[in-house]
Amino acid sequence: MHAITIPEPGGPEALVWAEVPDPEPGEGEVLVEVVAGAVNRADVLQRQGFYNPPPGASPYPGLECSGRIAALGPGVSGWAVGDEVCALLAGGGYAEKVVVPAGQLLPVPESLDLKQAAALPEVVCTVWSNVFMVSQLRPGETLLVHGGSSGIGTMAIQLAKAVGAKVAVTAGTKEKLDRCAELGADVLVNYREQDFVAEVKRATDGAGADVILDNMGATYLDRNVQALAPNGRLAIIGMQGGAKGELNIGTLLSKRAAISATSLRARPLGEKAAIVAAVREHVWPLLASGRVRPVVDRELPMPEAAEAHRVLEASGHVGKVLLVAP
Amino acid sequence: MHAITIPEPGGPEALVWAEVPDPEPGEGEVLVEVVAGAVNRADVLQRQGFYNPPPGASPYPGLECSGRIAALGPGVSGWAVGDEVCALLAGGGYAEKVVVPAGQLLPVPESLDLKQAAALPEVVCTVWSNVFMVSQLRPGETLLVHGGSSGIGTMAIQLAKAVGAKVAVTAGTKEKLDRCAELGADVLVNYREQDFVAEVKRATDGAGADVILDNMGATYLDRNVQALAPNGRLAIIGMQGGAKGELNIGTLLSKRAAISATSLRARPLGEKAAIVAAVREHVWPLLASGRVRPVVDRELPMPEAAEAHRVLEASGHVGKVLLVAP
Repeated sequence: MHAITIPEPGGPEALVWAEVPDPEPGEGEVLVEVVAGAVNRADVLQRQGFYNPPPGASPYPGLECSGRIAALGPGVSGWAVGDEVCALLAGGGYAEKVVVPAGQLLPVPESLDLKQAAALPEVVCTVWSNVFMVSQLRPGETLLVHGGSSGIGTMAIQLAKAVGAKVAVTAGTKEKLDRCAELGADVLVNYREQDFVAEVKRATDGAGADVILDNMGATYLDRNVQALAPNGRLAIIGMQGGAKGELNIGTLLSKRAAISATSLRARPLGEKAAIVAAVREHVWPLLASGRVRPVVDRELPMPEAAEAHRVLEASGHVGKVLLVAP
Repeated sequence: MHAITIPEPGGPEALVWAEVPDPEPGEGEVLVEVVAGAVNRADVLQRQGFYNPPPGASPYPGLECSGRIAALGPGVSGWAVGDEVCALLAGGGYAEKVVVPAGQLLPVPESLDLKQAAALPEVVCTVWSNVFMVSQLRPGETLLVHGGSSGIGTMAIQLAKAVGAKVAVTAGTKEKLDRCAELGADVLVNYREQDFVAEVKRATDGAGADVILDNMGATYLDRNVQALAPNGRLAIIGMQGGAKGELNIGTLLSKRAAISATSLRARPLGEKAAIVAAVREHVWPLLASGRVRPVVDRELPMPEAAEAHRVLEASGHVGKVLLVAP
């Protein structure tokens, strides 16, 4: 098969479409013939040499894909060769074939075509596990989503609205904020021109956000804690603004607030399977009915993954960038 | 009645036993004739002028007491004049009488005398709400308790052991650690001589603590995060080591760990009542059977509260210091 390889870490040009050995499914795994993969920020870090795949994972980038089951390893039940699926991956989605633990497979929602489904697994599992399983967002509460127009952001807006929460978002342009509003966001903050702490407080009668989904880490830490409501929960899923920041424990304590930080990729198989099962139960019906939809910015041919990374790094996109297998 | 007043913030001598007006129970409140109060670190901060009582609370110090119900305000059911009780207070426990919302009353456990019961409410509610309700300590997990010989620490050790957890403690002397061991602590760390991160990892095959109950705040923040196991939870309930510290979000994220910070005193009535109800359901049977007991360092006459504060500040005590009303 062919896959995007990274002979040497570096810029987008480090991504090389090359012939590689086919993977083989082991116990409890299936082989998926990939129709499309999707691009995540973690892939950029991996390309740059800052984010090695966890032990046992494929060396190729790509944390999610859609496709058809081509073979079943020993001990797999509930799935058959030919099934159309999408899958959460520890790596290897930028390839013509990939091996997946069966617990990380999801059926393609009825309302979507097979290609679009590649936009779902990483985004839906990340949002559901952080905003709902860890941070327990409830109807009537306010969610603040940083980077509201990203793949994660566009899904978080829709899922939070679907459960009856109020949603505030930050983004860097009016165009991106308009797209967030179309998806249901109630409070729009242009972080280049406005202070999100002040805007979120203004929109919540001074209370603040009950849950914050943050991809910035250190640079936003202090302001995120300031923006939390009493009993608020800050869920950190990225560190685009650095890894070490000053925490005002006094503010956190006076609000009885909490901070969690997670990464989906490094979770053990059992945790991933539990998240996938919860997503199938709670989110898949919303996708089947069309209430929630993946937002796809564009599709590119998989061998042009370098161009997809340039798009992601330029940050002009809204939603997901897909890589379609040849 | 008489109460300990604080005419001017300052050292222990700032505590003055004086005649003051009797409080009167309002809607949903009861008047308790105090038999004993207990001393907490928060009382020291209040005496020093660093921790004002929340709005509506008694101006006198004291976050817990035991006594007999002397009068019922309107709308109180389930309690009668003469009932022997202990109570979680927002203030006013250093007094002959105190008014308490009925949701913060607890019966005196059968195994204890009325005076000893004063040692329970703040400690039991703090440990239960943080270690069990927020941080969800489970059987087989490891709890690290800083200040294992404190009132909070001695109760946390016993409750964690009662649910089948492993317990590591830090303390500053061999004598204190011996007392912790008598209460069931499995791993003893003398923080003056040993590195608690290394000791906790050594005792858990390198994994770390699943839950940490911390009273230090800033000075321990980085090491607490280092000492957490994957999926670990750090519960901060005090800031004896300062309020602002550097958080390594990268370490937190790689462990999928969480930090919470709470203060019991500032919680709204509904949250306090929910904690008290949970404590009555889960902890009171353990106290009734004698499986868990309050640890009382000494009793002093309430007018000598200044001496009680000196004892607390000298940090030579183990467990709670009680103030017995005249």
